[in-house]
Amino acid sequence: MHGDPFATLILSLALILATAKIGGHVFARMGQPPVLGELGAGVLLGNLTFAGFSGLESLKSDAALDTLSQLGAILLLFQVGLESTVAQMLEVGPSSFLVATLGVIGPFVLGWGIGAWLLPDASIYTHIFLGATLTATSVGITARVLKDLGRSQSAEARIILGAAVVDDVQGLVILAVVTGIIAAANQGVALSYGAIAVVVLKATVFLFGSLALAVYVTPRLFSLASKLEASGVLLAFGLAFCFALAGLAGLIGLAPIVGAFAAGLVLEDLHTRNFVNRGERSLEHLVEPIASFLAPIFFVMMGVRTDLHAFTQPGVVGFATMLTLAAVAGKQLCALGVVGKGYDRLSVGIGMTPRGEVGLIFANIGLTLVVAGERIVDQRIFSAVVIMVIATTLITPPALKWSFGRKAPDSTLQASGQKPGTRRPKPTP
Amino acid sequence: MHGDPFATLILSLALILATAKIGGHVFARMGQPPVLGELGAGVLLGNLTFAGFSGLESLKSDAALDTLSQLGAILLLFQVGLESTVAQMLEVGPSSFLVATLGVIGPFVLGWGIGAWLLPDASIYTHIFLGATLTATSVGITARVLKDLGRSQSAEARIILGAAVVDDVQGLVILAVVTGIIAAANQGVALSYGAIAVVVLKATVFLFGSLALAVYVTPRLFSLASKLEASGVLLAFGLAFCFALAGLAGLIGLAPIVGAFAAGLVLEDLHTRNFVNRGERSLEHLVEPIASFLAPIFFVMMGVRTDLHAFTQPGVVGFATMLTLAAVAGKQLCALGVVGKGYDRLSVGIGMTPRGEVGLIFANIGLTLVVAGERIVDQRIFSAVVIMVIATTLITPPALKWSFGRKAPDSTLQASGQKPGTRRPKPTP
Repeated sequence: MHGDPFATLILSLALILATAKIGGHVFARMGQPPVLGELGAGVLLGNLTFAGFSGLESLKSDAALDTLSQLGAILLLFQVGLESTVAQMLEVGPSSFLVATLGVIGPFVLGWGIGAWLLPDASIYTHIFLGATLTATSVGITARVLKDLGRSQSAEARIILGAAVVDDVQGLVILAVVTGIIAAANQGVALSYGAIAVVVLKATVFLFGSLALAVYVTPRLFSLASKLEASGVLLAFGLAFCFALAGLAGLIGLAPIVGAFAAGLVLEDLHTRNFVNRGERSLEHLVEPIASFLAPIFFVMMGVRTDLHAFTQPGVVGFATMLTLAAVAGKQLCALGVVGKGYDRLSVGIGMTPRGEVGLIFANIGLTLVVAGERIVDQRIFSAVVIMVIATTLITPPALKWSFGRKAPDSTLQASGQKPGTRRPKPTP
Repeated sequence: MHGDPFATLILSLALILATAKIGGHVFARMGQPPVLGELGAGVLLGNLTFAGFSGLESLKSDAALDTLSQLGAILLLFQVGLESTVAQMLEVGPSSFLVATLGVIGPFVLGWGIGAWLLPDASIYTHIFLGATLTATSVGITARVLKDLGRSQSAEARIILGAAVVDDVQGLVILAVVTGIIAAANQGVALSYGAIAVVVLKATVFLFGSLALAVYVTPRLFSLASKLEASGVLLAFGLAFCFALAGLAGLIGLAPIVGAFAAGLVLEDLHTRNFVNRGERSLEHLVEPIASFLAPIFFVMMGVRTDLHAFTQPGVVGFATMLTLAAVAGKQLCALGVVGKGYDRLSVGIGMTPRGEVGLIFANIGLTLVVAGERIVDQRIFSAVVIMVIATTLITPPALKWSFGRKAPDSTLQASGQKPGTRRPKPTP
């Protein structure tokens, strides 16, 4: 309880929360989603060395802040999942699967091509790895923008969120396979097809198996929990369920946010009615302040880790620009995957664009890969990937706001006086 | 996002939250406050090695869990502070000060005496240190029990919480002075009275200075914040304010929970009315689910760190029993400090009894002290202190429940069918 590191942590939290809201305010005044302001606040805090101040450099590597920001991503996805139901997801299921698959193939091919074209001297493994890095989708930003726009209940939102889950699984499988090929090449060993099959299998089993199990187990678990005589049981068991599924996803090598979203998805109002019927607040209501505390930490920390110095390296800007174009163009293939009529295909393609933290993690993994003593991803490529991640992430909120606004001129968001995000608007039916 | 340590952390959180509520349920069924069940759940999880299972041993040293449990204590004290106002505190101010001072003198003298009597071979520094260890009060347990009993608004609660703040400051001053004396003795140097004065001064300046500053700054800060166009501003600034004061307390060597309580205390409904008047939820309402998520982690982790093996060491149980009696008896002197009539003096003395995490921290510091190559606190004394901390902490909830119940036979808590903690009862006026 007493001690400097903890005092430093909570002072950092105070700074992060206050600047997040000030940044959100500034961007809201400019008609942009507040989340972009939270990212911007983070970029500012993380690059004060440009102004000669290095007192906040320790934020970048603070383990406790990293943990809290990861919990923020988990709770954000849990919250988004809570707002959807399995039935709604199955309705858009085929579209989500097609969207995700095209959104993986498109960027993979384009990324490989850009690598082969602009980095002819690099090995084929570097080109393949660049393709793999472009496949990721970070749904955190999109989910938040959809919330800010009051569109998280729309069919397009469900397609995007469903596709992001499938995409995350597919992207991780590709990453596992590509890193496997590179590791094997480094040892001069042919890659085992069995190992690839195991990765693919466990991802599939987790996604469908855990969903099926959860649908069966959830109602019984929460019916039992509602009989416990203690305060805060609904919140504790709701969070425990979310953390358990997210943790299991992490243990088998998937992204924990996939599990958190799945947990929110299978938790229906029906399961928790025992609590709500006796006058307690609903789980969505209870999770909201917790996500509202932790999610801004996630967005600010993403900004803090964004090193603007990368932009100053020679040749990086050109390569990064081409990589970004490939990343954006590749994901627009997603629009073709939407099955049925009356959907806003452009918004789906745009919604799938941000790479966010998933792309950064891919790039980080790339830094550790070596074939025959040569690094697969050097500092120049890494910087370009970081810039691509930032650009795709920064482009998405305004683009999504524009594309949704384009189709709904009667929406409340178009009313000239109203600023989005000030108060969360009710979803349009 | 991807990786084992984080997956392990969230699986641990799932386990902690679920067992906390099950433990709370079991104790509620036995008519005990649920918080004791959360502690008990932790003791169980932390001592599974007795049953031959060592898979949870890593919980004890997990840095992320430690951070989250400390945040839980911070938010718990912030929440308790929010429920009180400065005016209410000043009303009981003289009592709180007297109660705290007597509650420091009593245990200090008794602890020194017990040490001199039962450990005649140990140095006088050991005896003095034992006295210092007994002075601490951990208000976390008492605050939670008062909440569970619906008594956190009572005059006795305000005296106890106010006294705990003063006591924490006084206890830390004593600790600083005693460790200073011991360090000087080890170097053969006379203790500087200037250093003692600095410790005393900064504690006083923080407590009164920051309260005065906060009373002046708070209304302006929140009035400005209410003009920001972003969602979740009230919660973000409320938490930022709490973390800032807690962090400042920590930086100058006080317990951060003192700052968190002070932050809650000076934040009045009046300051946040701009938010509430436009239909947002109140700060108390928003903080409640966050405290409800993090506080059980604090209580479970306190239990987890309780090593029952200490009980099996020879001679420890007898010495620990005497130390516990001294700790309990010493704090009953607090009852004499209550100024005015009609107060439940016994409840005040009992409420001041638990040492909790503060006592453990004192004991930990003792382990590091050495005079002329000899340790001031050996493993045997440490074990006895740990047992004293557990015993005073475990005794308090049922004793407090009994003493409050004794004076209020018409309270809802006495209704035979109703279990405390199932639903938080409204405070009796």
